[in-house]
Amino acid sequence: MVQKFNDSRGLHGQVAGTTALCTVGASGSGLTYCGYDIADLAAQASFEEVAFLLHTGELPSQTELTRFKQRLAEYRALSPLLCEILERIPKHANPMDVMRSGCSAMGVLAPEQSFADQDQHAIRMLAQFPAICCYWYHFSHFGVRIATESKADSLGGHFLTLLNQREPSEIEAAVMQASLILYAEHEFNASTFAARVAASTLTDIYSAVTGAIGTLRGPLHGGANEAAMALIDSFASPDEAEAGLLAMLAAKQKIMGFGHAVYRTRDPRNAIIKAWSRKIGTAKNNMKLFDISERCESVMWQEKKLFANADFYHASAYHLLGIPTELFTPIFVMSRVAGWTAHIKEQRGNNRIIRPGAEYIGAEPRPYTSLSMRNG
Amino acid sequence: MVQKFNDSRGLHGQVAGTTALCTVGASGSGLTYCGYDIADLAAQASFEEVAFLLHTGELPSQTELTRFKQRLAEYRALSPLLCEILERIPKHANPMDVMRSGCSAMGVLAPEQSFADQDQHAIRMLAQFPAICCYWYHFSHFGVRIATESKADSLGGHFLTLLNQREPSEIEAAVMQASLILYAEHEFNASTFAARVAASTLTDIYSAVTGAIGTLRGPLHGGANEAAMALIDSFASPDEAEAGLLAMLAAKQKIMGFGHAVYRTRDPRNAIIKAWSRKIGTAKNNMKLFDISERCESVMWQEKKLFANADFYHASAYHLLGIPTELFTPIFVMSRVAGWTAHIKEQRGNNRIIRPGAEYIGAEPRPYTSLSMRNG
Repeated sequence: MVQKFNDSRGLHGQVAGTTALCTVGASGSGLTYCGYDIADLAAQASFEEVAFLLHTGELPSQTELTRFKQRLAEYRALSPLLCEILERIPKHANPMDVMRSGCSAMGVLAPEQSFADQDQHAIRMLAQFPAICCYWYHFSHFGVRIATESKADSLGGHFLTLLNQREPSEIEAAVMQASLILYAEHEFNASTFAARVAASTLTDIYSAVTGAIGTLRGPLHGGANEAAMALIDSFASPDEAEAGLLAMLAAKQKIMGFGHAVYRTRDPRNAIIKAWSRKIGTAKNNMKLFDISERCESVMWQEKKLFANADFYHASAYHLLGIPTELFTPIFVMSRVAGWTAHIKEQRGNNRIIRPGAEYIGAEPRPYTSLSMRNG
Repeated sequence: MVQKFNDSRGLHGQVAGTTALCTVGASGSGLTYCGYDIADLAAQASFEEVAFLLHTGELPSQTELTRFKQRLAEYRALSPLLCEILERIPKHANPMDVMRSGCSAMGVLAPEQSFADQDQHAIRMLAQFPAICCYWYHFSHFGVRIATESKADSLGGHFLTLLNQREPSEIEAAVMQASLILYAEHEFNASTFAARVAASTLTDIYSAVTGAIGTLRGPLHGGANEAAMALIDSFASPDEAEAGLLAMLAAKQKIMGFGHAVYRTRDPRNAIIKAWSRKIGTAKNNMKLFDISERCESVMWQEKKLFANADFYHASAYHLLGIPTELFTPIFVMSRVAGWTAHIKEQRGNNRIIRPGAEYIGAEPRPYTSLSMRNG
């Protein structure tokens, strides 16, 4: 027998499994990874420590962290065949389609042969996603085949090095690091749940992550930071932003970057990325987008009691890192793959195929009419 | 608040949404597409009629069917860039990884720009999946660039033409047709549910289907017909099969192709594909695999009260069509894409993002310890 809910669509508020990785919207801080408060992690940890934490349940020792970062560095280079495939993707492509296809290509060229190798493949994806994005970007836009390795000490620094073709400053690398930590994990969001549904058939890790990327691509999931950028970029000053937003609200237009499906009063990630956005603006002596963002935030709170979510201040921060807006969501992929792969491992560890039921609302049983008897 | 079940894993027996496409395991026949009994459809309809039915809710008139088949034929040819990408995938690749990557590549090279175009893209996938499989297969195995179009009147015939590089006989095309109808749709199975989770973020149709292919790839979902082939191929005669199966059962080995997660007493698709397997064996004067299969079926029923499912007799039937075993699950993709795309359209028509909750079983809130203070 199937159990039915008032509105079964979306499974909101229904438990679809267990996890030891994350709490979202619980009392207290509102977001923890394996018991650690997101504010503590963003302030004190590196993204590599956080990825290790998600994959093992514990923070690494110095020795473990060194080894983990070493492996991340060793796996950075893309294979020649993967580069050849990326070179065939045109400039006008959606970068999320590039990430999805790049991940799928990784899985077909060097597949996960056994679940015993799952950690190695998770590390490979973490290591290579920045280069998949940047190699395609430079080749399709400028016809340049960039090196896919770098001497950068961190994954965030590696990405910025490949993208901007120069070493990032200390503060640039730090902003990137914090951003990757904030996006790394978020319980049973749609893309993570898609990864778990795939993993529940005992498919390979690349299939599950490929599905997650395609799910994150949707405008109701990833993409809010790109929409926030379009919004703040459309205003020349805080005053103009206030007038513009009020007009949009009066016209009942949807404003991206505010509110959240799970958080009710605040998104704990907002204060963190907001502080970094302010810092990078100060360092670059360019506060325009930050000031516009802050005015938007206060207007939205005053008018609609809607708070800025994790995505909103990412727009101004990423922009000052020299990141083209269309690459904002691929960065989400580079980070969240830490959480996706941790969930895939967890699903495999206590698996049952995810196969819900449906309420049938279609035609009653009816006899087949042969083609010649049909109207039209 | 989250509602909790005794075993929330897998969402078994829980309604995750509504559908007008399919009933599985309801009283009566056990499987209907849009109200039509699977036995009627397999006996009287073409696969193209069934795909049209799933996409529109009604069987086509002669005019509609002619137009639909015309479009399916027009879209058959793969683009040169897609061929170049497929040529880079090695011979030893998992063909399901090829299908997943081919679908993703279709989406990056010629994306769905608007949901208004969804039908066109669904037809493109139906039309091109056979060629994605066969083009890669012939190039990687024999170094031959096959033509990706054919004059075949049906999708099943088109696939057999590309694969075997000759026109299929009438009975060969008919077996293929029936098989494609049987696999076309099956309610909220894991791959279809994965497609709906992706679609619920309003992502594009290729992302959702790419995720579904990766989900179907898992051995708990697709792949049972390949396992059935390995089983029956390991026996030289019905008597040997009986002895071998009894020994496997005594050793508590898992036998693929029997039983079902939803059906309790029989799989309504089994009698249909079994009849076709017998017919093609008779036509080719080669009953060996059929006879072995039939003995397996009776042993499994006598010993374990387990019935053969849709996959079991597909093995002997496909083998006599000249299909390499490793391509069995890709055929499942060529067929099920009709159902997946119908579900994606249905999800979009009444959408809410699919975002369930999770029961947290991890570490209690704990303070962050700095790296230098950790043991190891």
